[in-house]
Amino acid sequence: MAHIDLGNDIPGIRGLFAYRPDTGAVLSDLGEALLRGDSTLSRGERELIATYVSHLNECRYCSRSHGACAAAQLEGGPGQVEATLADPAEAPVSARLKALLAIAARVQENGRAVTDKDIAAARAEGATDREIHDAVLIAAAFCMFNRYVDGLAALTPDDPAYYAATGARLAERGYAPPR
Amino acid sequence: MAHIDLGNDIPGIRGLFAYRPDTGAVLSDLGEALLRGDSTLSRGERELIATYVSHLNECRYCSRSHGACAAAQLEGGPGQVEATLADPAEAPVSARLKALLAIAARVQENGRAVTDKDIAAARAEGATDREIHDAVLIAAAFCMFNRYVDGLAALTPDDPAYYAATGARLAERGYAPPR
Repeated sequence: MAHIDLGNDIPGIRGLFAYRPDTGAVLSDLGEALLRGDSTLSRGERELIATYVSHLNECRYCSRSHGACAAAQLEGGPGQVEATLADPAEAPVSARLKALLAIAARVQENGRAVTDKDIAAARAEGATDREIHDAVLIAAAFCMFNRYVDGLAALTPDDPAYYAATGARLAERGYAPPR
Repeated sequence: MAHIDLGNDIPGIRGLFAYRPDTGAVLSDLGEALLRGDSTLSRGERELIATYVSHLNECRYCSRSHGACAAAQLEGGPGQVEATLADPAEAPVSARLKALLAIAARVQENGRAVTDKDIAAARAEGATDREIHDAVLIAAAFCMFNRYVDGLAALTPDDPAYYAATGARLAERGYAPPR
């Protein structure tokens, strides 16, 4: 049960968005811009960064939803997501994405943990400034989303089918709120 | 110097907003809704929560800017902000706000750290569900803003006059982006 009376039984962050629709709309716009807006990082790659940070924050709702969404959009499917979470340093992804995942892990710890060396390593693998920017902001944003969900103890289903359906829906329709 | 070439020398998060204006506008809207939108928490109280979380994350730019903004809107001025950061358990604020600051500190650590006891303690001091929700979301949002600023090493001025002017401007004009 959530820490407050949400007046709905919608799982996860969507129940929080329904509770306060004005901030819900802004946060949905943020998800849409970061994870699906114009970028040289694929949607699957961006979802994988979001999943990895949610996994580090131990946010079960977000890591499972975005993990399913990443799996729906990456060629390697669920196995690629699982292998990345299990061993990010040896993740079956491009060297560029691996370096961006390493930056995301620093951001998850604390923004000040990102070093010049982390940035240089990403650049050496071909990451652009915009890709570094976006990896940092995606990681930072999921440090918010994860805390919002778990800080209010939002409803977190156990059924794997729930997350598979959520991931497929997000991959197809995205995050934009109905207006 | 920032980790990436921002193409501007605007300090702090505003330099990042200018680099990517679409997400900048969304993040500004979030700040406006959370810190200045309709609420039974005063603007000064909400800025104090933001300042406290930024202080815990050791984000110098955000803690000083929002500290100045809180000071400009709280009756106790800068002394009240400083005393709160120095000893939150004995902060010279209402018992209700003190309980919300305690929840914010849990959220800063990790959303899962918030306990039923923390929520009950806030309720016992008269905090409403909406106030608990907003304290959690403000704390979570500053875990993002702080990481965004420090993760990209945004320009952080040393001059106290810069923060006093920024705090006064935010208190007067707020966060809404020019449109």
